[in-house]
Amino acid sequence: MNPYLIGLRCSLCGTTHAPDEVTYTCPKDNGNLDAIYDYAHLARYLDPRAITHNPDRSLWRYAPLLPVVPPAAPHTPLAALGGSPLYRAPALERALGIRAVWMKDDSRLPSSSFKDRASAMVIARAMEMGIKTICVASTGNAAAALAALCAGTDLQAVIFVPESTPEAKLAGILIHGARVYTVRGSYNDAVALAEAACREFGWYNRSTGFNPYTREGKKTAGFEIAEQLARQDARRADSGFRAPDVVIVPVGDGNIISGVHKGFRELHMLGWIEHMPRFIGVTAALAPSFYRAWQSGGEQFETIPSQTIASGIGTDRPCDGVMALRAIRSTGGAVVEATDEEMLDAMRKLATRAGVFVEPACAAAYVGLVKGRHIGVIGNDDEVVLQLTGSGFKDVRSALRAADKPIRVESLADVQP
Amino acid sequence: MNPYLIGLRCSLCGTTHAPDEVTYTCPKDNGNLDAIYDYAHLARYLDPRAITHNPDRSLWRYAPLLPVVPPAAPHTPLAALGGSPLYRAPALERALGIRAVWMKDDSRLPSSSFKDRASAMVIARAMEMGIKTICVASTGNAAAALAALCAGTDLQAVIFVPESTPEAKLAGILIHGARVYTVRGSYNDAVALAEAACREFGWYNRSTGFNPYTREGKKTAGFEIAEQLARQDARRADSGFRAPDVVIVPVGDGNIISGVHKGFRELHMLGWIEHMPRFIGVTAALAPSFYRAWQSGGEQFETIPSQTIASGIGTDRPCDGVMALRAIRSTGGAVVEATDEEMLDAMRKLATRAGVFVEPACAAAYVGLVKGRHIGVIGNDDEVVLQLTGSGFKDVRSALRAADKPIRVESLADVQP
Repeated sequence: MNPYLIGLRCSLCGTTHAPDEVTYTCPKDNGNLDAIYDYAHLARYLDPRAITHNPDRSLWRYAPLLPVVPPAAPHTPLAALGGSPLYRAPALERALGIRAVWMKDDSRLPSSSFKDRASAMVIARAMEMGIKTICVASTGNAAAALAALCAGTDLQAVIFVPESTPEAKLAGILIHGARVYTVRGSYNDAVALAEAACREFGWYNRSTGFNPYTREGKKTAGFEIAEQLARQDARRADSGFRAPDVVIVPVGDGNIISGVHKGFRELHMLGWIEHMPRFIGVTAALAPSFYRAWQSGGEQFETIPSQTIASGIGTDRPCDGVMALRAIRSTGGAVVEATDEEMLDAMRKLATRAGVFVEPACAAAYVGLVKGRHIGVIGNDDEVVLQLTGSGFKDVRSALRAADKPIRVESLADVQP
Repeated sequence: MNPYLIGLRCSLCGTTHAPDEVTYTCPKDNGNLDAIYDYAHLARYLDPRAITHNPDRSLWRYAPLLPVVPPAAPHTPLAALGGSPLYRAPALERALGIRAVWMKDDSRLPSSSFKDRASAMVIARAMEMGIKTICVASTGNAAAALAALCAGTDLQAVIFVPESTPEAKLAGILIHGARVYTVRGSYNDAVALAEAACREFGWYNRSTGFNPYTREGKKTAGFEIAEQLARQDARRADSGFRAPDVVIVPVGDGNIISGVHKGFRELHMLGWIEHMPRFIGVTAALAPSFYRAWQSGGEQFETIPSQTIASGIGTDRPCDGVMALRAIRSTGGAVVEATDEEMLDAMRKLATRAGVFVEPACAAAYVGLVKGRHIGVIGNDDEVVLQLTGSGFKDVRSALRAADKPIRVESLADVQP
């Protein structure tokens, strides 16, 4: 455990619990917990160059700001995780009239989604605690990340996914030897069953939002974006970190946006970046619980059955909604909705203009770019980062719906110049 | 063009042609051409640290040893390509009794296969020549690599794939807006049709082996492996490059093994590594043309219809067979065959023990590890590198065949502790 980890603070009642006393949500009111560090001490004694000059390109380079000890498994996918590329999309900049559009491509992590970051942190925590079985409820990506990173260790992964999980996501979980249960019902039904199983059998629960360490893994994407942007800018390369103007993140449980936001917030508290970026959350129009809470101005969430094709953000009720809303509101950001058709169109736009192939839930970030520009949260002179969350190979059926059809040919006579 | 590129030498007759005089194979005898540099000059004047100290982590860091000028498209997938991770697999080392087993994971490149390396080089060459349409015949991966890397440029990709191409590979091509023709027949039929179309319409042909620049892209994997191994070894980190004892590569056309071999051969000629690794080629038992040529001791290839599930190496006749055979024979390596069932089992072994999820053609490298150990080409004390060539998400149907089935549950009563 990091000696500067002070405790886990409830997002609702504000109580801070010692990390070894509480495992999941707040015992008083079930609020999501946020890991709190001794930022005053870190700001005074931690030199950012101790991080930016670290030759280790993995997310473990940020160990002084992580809750756990990096796992001792040199050169494995678990140890080498992180350092996904930050691409630029000049064709999108020209088309939309925006100064700079970057894409943080987490579809390039080992199990092809952002969720590897959270699984790595939970696995490291399980190793610290001597736990042997980790369980997760997932729409697919978190499960694949857990299954892949447990491979080759002595940890067993147990998975609960809704039966509507796309075939490719299921394959990417099963192949790693995890025990996989398909649950009749929604993602939130799988969450409930995983929680019951963990209580019954003493397994460690990695489920998103419920386990406070997931956000600690996800914040590393914010660290990496800020470090990669500083490196592009010769005048500021010395400072080590630089914030963009806007970050756009698809929202299902809200845990990715609260995580990336936390990464920037910690850098800001340490005085390593000068301002916070505005956060734009993009939800599926057919999974409207989060969007309605945003519109209400409050922090209450209804449970509303989701029907979107975007499996990665198809939640009936967000598991980390409060912290996500606060990330967006506190930075002057916005929430926009994406229809299924808009996400399919966005998959095609990102693939044809920016060369990245992502799943529908991830393509929602592009919809956020277009709509954020339209409503004025993104201006001409802004530098924007799209957080890409999952590979298009995770949902081939949607890709085939989004793309043109191939042309069958028999001979050269059928080929057009 | 690189000023130290002397010419393109025929693998059969040995004639060296000027690079601007010949585009594809040898005009005399149709032999594959090999790009030749002024190695004597480079050995004298090129400091390896000019490469190893380059902050650019992409394959363009090797520009002094590449035929073309790096494309001017900062931070795009095309410009950022390369630098795939080199993982270690301690569980495989223990299970097989081998000192060191590494995996060069090119499934992590932008279009999720090794073929990005070759497409990048051909695209850069097309840009130098002012060509606007690039065509390729492919079993799927080379096509996806071309389509993805042409996105956002003003280049148009035209693709020919056999109609048996797995759905996911097709989706990964179509989504990028390439024009895709599915050809009734085999990969080699697609190769023939692409060649005819290029002749007819003046398109630039990227087809593997036929275009000599594909090998120039692929050799960068050899450079990266040698550089990454040296970095792991504190005593030798200064020398910049280090060769393993054995490199294992799946063989379809033979162009990947001839490419990776060329990377090591150039480092050896420059005096930057002390020895050449032994190369083990792994073919599909149901695509036996290359294996029979290996067994015959000669360099003649029969055309034999392929029927393997391993689409990536399902060739009737290898397009770069001669150079591949020489790479293996000249280093004291071997060729072994993998059955479809062995490849499915290997997918599962790599996924459960090493955490990597790869397609059947790629999993063949693991079969090569086991069989190479068995026949003595790999010893206890060897350091072995498996070249991973394509993601398991490219062929989900095979993954579902290789993996256990999920368990359907209704309630906690159905869950086992």
